[in-house]
Amino acid sequence: MQLKKETSLKNQIKDNLTKYRNFPMVPRVIYGPGSFGQLGEILMPHRKSSDAPIIFLVDDVFEGRELAERVPLMFDDQLIFISADEEPKTEQVDVLVQKLLSDHNDLPSGIVGIGGGTLLDLAKAVAIMLTNNGPASDYQGWDLVKKPALYHVGIPTISGTGAEVSRTTVLLGPHKKLGINSDYTPFDQVVLDPDLTLGVPADQWFYTGMDCYIHCVESLNGTFLNAFSQSYGEKALDLCKEVFLEDLPEDESREKLMMASWHGGMSIAYSQVGVAHAMSYGLSYVLGTKHGIGNCLVFQHLDEFYPEGVKLFRQMQHKHNIHLPEGICASLSDEQMDTMVNVALGLEPLWQNALGPEWRQIMTPSRLKALYEKI
Amino acid sequence: MQLKKETSLKNQIKDNLTKYRNFPMVPRVIYGPGSFGQLGEILMPHRKSSDAPIIFLVDDVFEGRELAERVPLMFDDQLIFISADEEPKTEQVDVLVQKLLSDHNDLPSGIVGIGGGTLLDLAKAVAIMLTNNGPASDYQGWDLVKKPALYHVGIPTISGTGAEVSRTTVLLGPHKKLGINSDYTPFDQVVLDPDLTLGVPADQWFYTGMDCYIHCVESLNGTFLNAFSQSYGEKALDLCKEVFLEDLPEDESREKLMMASWHGGMSIAYSQVGVAHAMSYGLSYVLGTKHGIGNCLVFQHLDEFYPEGVKLFRQMQHKHNIHLPEGICASLSDEQMDTMVNVALGLEPLWQNALGPEWRQIMTPSRLKALYEKI
Repeated sequence: MQLKKETSLKNQIKDNLTKYRNFPMVPRVIYGPGSFGQLGEILMPHRKSSDAPIIFLVDDVFEGRELAERVPLMFDDQLIFISADEEPKTEQVDVLVQKLLSDHNDLPSGIVGIGGGTLLDLAKAVAIMLTNNGPASDYQGWDLVKKPALYHVGIPTISGTGAEVSRTTVLLGPHKKLGINSDYTPFDQVVLDPDLTLGVPADQWFYTGMDCYIHCVESLNGTFLNAFSQSYGEKALDLCKEVFLEDLPEDESREKLMMASWHGGMSIAYSQVGVAHAMSYGLSYVLGTKHGIGNCLVFQHLDEFYPEGVKLFRQMQHKHNIHLPEGICASLSDEQMDTMVNVALGLEPLWQNALGPEWRQIMTPSRLKALYEKI
Repeated sequence: MQLKKETSLKNQIKDNLTKYRNFPMVPRVIYGPGSFGQLGEILMPHRKSSDAPIIFLVDDVFEGRELAERVPLMFDDQLIFISADEEPKTEQVDVLVQKLLSDHNDLPSGIVGIGGGTLLDLAKAVAIMLTNNGPASDYQGWDLVKKPALYHVGIPTISGTGAEVSRTTVLLGPHKKLGINSDYTPFDQVVLDPDLTLGVPADQWFYTGMDCYIHCVESLNGTFLNAFSQSYGEKALDLCKEVFLEDLPEDESREKLMMASWHGGMSIAYSQVGVAHAMSYGLSYVLGTKHGIGNCLVFQHLDEFYPEGVKLFRQMQHKHNIHLPEGICASLSDEQMDTMVNVALGLEPLWQNALGPEWRQIMTPSRLKALYEKI
């Protein structure tokens, strides 16, 4: 008996030492060129009644284009075109939620986001905020959402953000750029149709693809990494190298980048992004710089943190003839620069992952400011 | 308007041409050495009442060992040790279901399988058959399950089968060896704790690891492959090569094989296994050969179908000093051989994947018999 008690105590201690996240995966995914055509059938069992519509949030670049016609509207469904010219905002989420509540007597049956990271993040946030009270900014952070979101579906039309599979929805709030990171955030359904990424402009394709490449480099070089995240991150990185450094046929390239984005998003499960994302969040907050190009602007100057990664990035940039703007931070006021530095340094988990628990001694405000000044 | 109608018609036609599976992923996964210690906490919200127990089906190799002590039993929970010496059977599932129904007034809150492929497949099948009427053999096939299964959790203690993530539960029935392949089959929760694979005997480690390696080779060389399955299959194959051909530290090797199994299972989402699995099913059905070793016995003779794969397999076998038994099929009666050939040829999707739609002209009964006679 004594032995048993001791063993049991030992086990309890062992069990309490480490605590892992029980990671929520997207429970349904359909993959294939043309799979968007099955959306109507997929949504049907989730329609609660003819008064509970499905709301489609669609990137406004598709206004008047074929994709918009193919959206399977029924009953009181609403298709709302939204511009992705700016990063998604908590206020924008609040306005959308109020509009939907006043437009319909019943709660919607579901929210479908069709577009890039902006539209996917808006769809996730709206689905959460339709069942949780208060402003969206109250939920920016880790595990603050208490009630399950409405059924929500993500359909990427550009590859790289990983928003289709991630546990977060990154929003610009009144005080910070930060995700609503919760078990209720991931989509209930994702449709991966590589044909939808046809016609993405070359620069957007590059910047968004680099979002994937950069967060893989950050994840694989981070201190949080484990074998689960490593395996996804390595595969995503391999696929990025194929897509951006080899000469694949176009359709194969689109299919592979869509999978790179998927695996890249999964690699964050037990990991985190790092220096580039933290700094890019600061840029977005103060200058409204879009996430994809923001990452590139920052990452090119991070040789000292990610030497191999930055070297390959430059090769990719050269191969695809991408010229990044310069002097972005040249005309910032001291106050703006301070805000940028503070927003970036506020993202503790990212710095911990990148530089370890003693990160504050490594990344001082003045060192960060000097990095920003290069951009 | 005319244009619109035409576009719409074109889209409808396009939409009807291809039909992809909306694949169910395991919605919750926890990964990490020692993560088994969080099982009690994970199960708690799924306990319906003190009268609705959790049933733990555990490989009997753990009887009296530490792992069995760590199973978080509460209330009327039952821990049932089951031998994995034989392949799981539909009849065994029926007996277990009857036992659980007579042992308890309420339906269980959930079923937890702890072990290798046999225990995981039994747990999936029991969870399905507790909510669906009739014998388990009625559900062997594709999409025959009509009602959601009970909450079920998979905890692998050996790596390679992919049963922890797959959409099937393979059972020996009265008429065939075939999976219950349905949207309700995948686990609701998986616990990936690489520490649980400590102490697996070397030959079992090899045979079960080769299950993963072989189904990746089959999936990657199959006609059903798409970019989704390819990306998972390639990663699983890369990890198998690291584990079986390089000299990794033991803990890294265990972690990587666990992830290889996971990705290997995912690679079947839009793919299928092939010649080796079809033949191995025949072996199991007639001789009761366990799946892992059965795959190896078959695969070594499949140079003509998988030349590169078989070459690497032999290198792995040599490196780990694995000697496969010979003359397995030498003393079979004609009737037994005919049965074996018929069971194998009955697995149409596997042959279609391996050899294309005209497979019957390629794999004739006499050619298959000649292959079996080599074993």
